[in-house]
Amino acid sequence: MTTPADLSTPALVVDSGALERNLALMAQAWPGRRLRPHVKAHKTTGLAHRQAAAGHAGFTCATVREVEGMAAAGLGEDLLLANEVLDMRRLGAVVEAGARVTVAVDSPEVLRAAVDGGVREVLVDVDVGLPRCGCAPEDAGRLADAARAAGLEVRGTMGYEGHLMLVADPDERARRTAEATGLLRRAAADVGGEVLSGGGTGTWRTNGVVTELQAGSYALMDTAYAALPDVPFEQALTVLATVVSVNRGGWAVADAGLKAFGMDHGNPSLPGAKVLYCSDEHTVVAPGDGGALPAVGDRVRFLPAHVDPTCALHERMWVVDGDDVLDCWPVDLRGW
Amino acid sequence: MTTPADLSTPALVVDSGALERNLALMAQAWPGRRLRPHVKAHKTTGLAHRQAAAGHAGFTCATVREVEGMAAAGLGEDLLLANEVLDMRRLGAVVEAGARVTVAVDSPEVLRAAVDGGVREVLVDVDVGLPRCGCAPEDAGRLADAARAAGLEVRGTMGYEGHLMLVADPDERARRTAEATGLLRRAAADVGGEVLSGGGTGTWRTNGVVTELQAGSYALMDTAYAALPDVPFEQALTVLATVVSVNRGGWAVADAGLKAFGMDHGNPSLPGAKVLYCSDEHTVVAPGDGGALPAVGDRVRFLPAHVDPTCALHERMWVVDGDDVLDCWPVDLRGW
Repeated sequence: MTTPADLSTPALVVDSGALERNLALMAQAWPGRRLRPHVKAHKTTGLAHRQAAAGHAGFTCATVREVEGMAAAGLGEDLLLANEVLDMRRLGAVVEAGARVTVAVDSPEVLRAAVDGGVREVLVDVDVGLPRCGCAPEDAGRLADAARAAGLEVRGTMGYEGHLMLVADPDERARRTAEATGLLRRAAADVGGEVLSGGGTGTWRTNGVVTELQAGSYALMDTAYAALPDVPFEQALTVLATVVSVNRGGWAVADAGLKAFGMDHGNPSLPGAKVLYCSDEHTVVAPGDGGALPAVGDRVRFLPAHVDPTCALHERMWVVDGDDVLDCWPVDLRGW
Repeated sequence: MTTPADLSTPALVVDSGALERNLALMAQAWPGRRLRPHVKAHKTTGLAHRQAAAGHAGFTCATVREVEGMAAAGLGEDLLLANEVLDMRRLGAVVEAGARVTVAVDSPEVLRAAVDGGVREVLVDVDVGLPRCGCAPEDAGRLADAARAAGLEVRGTMGYEGHLMLVADPDERARRTAEATGLLRRAAADVGGEVLSGGGTGTWRTNGVVTELQAGSYALMDTAYAALPDVPFEQALTVLATVVSVNRGGWAVADAGLKAFGMDHGNPSLPGAKVLYCSDEHTVVAPGDGGALPAVGDRVRFLPAHVDPTCALHERMWVVDGDDVLDCWPVDLRGW
């Protein structure tokens, strides 16, 4: 039997119990097709299979590679690329091979790319306040008409209120989510179709409008989301590291650094210790209040500050239940 | 002929001319064995082959995987793992297969791992002021004695003055580098052996003591190093992206984000534009002073804020000379 002590470090470790509780809690609130889990959060078809087993047959993707990999893993029943892409030839090949692929379009250029690439179904992507992709709500109907005129099937409308995910106060988040989904609804009236896609882990309680929620982070959870009072999912992902050096000066060095952690939300944290800094392959820590330095050879588990880009740095994640390593999932949707 | 316009984005692009000029300039100052290029900066054996062609037969590595990959690529004449590792069995297998592998040791535990793993040559790693790995200088002689008693060959001493690489004033950097190398020299007198290894791109002019410089960043260069007046290497690495969405509100969205850029030094930059923020697969930019918004489909080239972790996110780098794509190098030393 493999135990975490046998793993080569740094290693991405998933707490199996926490993951399963997160999947169950979300499936209860957003069952079946009501949830379209976003795979960008974990980039791992092994985990996506668990989400499918929890009842969700449709998935959200952020890259062409994610669409290809999900289809290759037998999870291609209904894949949404919730992102704009200008070369869809690889997506057309996935459609050709039998998967269902729907793409977001927010301009005539992206619409043309869908036609040229052989993708046949689209959602009109609408700007609901996040300064990123999405057409102006008042342009959505025109774009839908153009898509239909070009022979595409318009399944509906999409709008992601990403700017609201981390609004701390649930009431304010609810109020502003209602404004955003109001824009989405008005655009949807012009667009037609049955799908209203959007939302995420941060608005799982406050977005009551979408027909499918695009949540991804809930499965492994993130330090930032974990601070929200109404988002009770558990942090299931840690980076296991080995202490490789200890200095009398009062610090210890673990073998996981900038190449093992997504750093855009800052340093990882280590319960009971103070993280001083990260370099390429090291994180240097000092004891927490009243704590002792670890010893050379000790294993420690860091909480990454941002899960999504952390997963993208690792080749595999280990599924662990206490002292048992249950499974190893390749992070097989990395790259583009 | 492939041109950059044909590349799928995001793509890591190396300016061939800048790279070759960087390699030539460094090889002039630190010829042959005087330079031990650090492969952690690029993780790419294709680039390491260019460094070998510039005259450098020995290389520095930060991970076991880097050592394995360099040996497999035929670059195993003299590999230094300048890092502490507690399980060296995979390194022993590389030695067994015919490569020369030397490891850093800074504690009895790591020394024991070398013996147990079948690695036969070591450098004693000394703390010269960077709060990371390295034994106290006064312990170096004892550790060398213990290594010899355990049957290991002690090739010399190593000490990395990483805390001084980005000291802005060259004179202050030189003065403090002399203090650090003074510690290294005194430890080396106790340790014996012929090798004094250390230094980096930031101290390429100010470290006059080491017998071999462990510089890595000089090849592709980094935004932070490029700000130093006495470090004239050119920034050779960009991330090519496609503008996938443009908003009347005054922003454009490119298809390279947190998973395409090392973010620990902050956002990437885009000449002529203002970077607003990055999300998983997007960077949102506004026009620079007096500039215009790009159009959907335009190609742009971002300068990553930190090259090392940026390379670790990509599967390959494209070697480009103007409009010609000359080569494609797998980033084959990623992972651990």
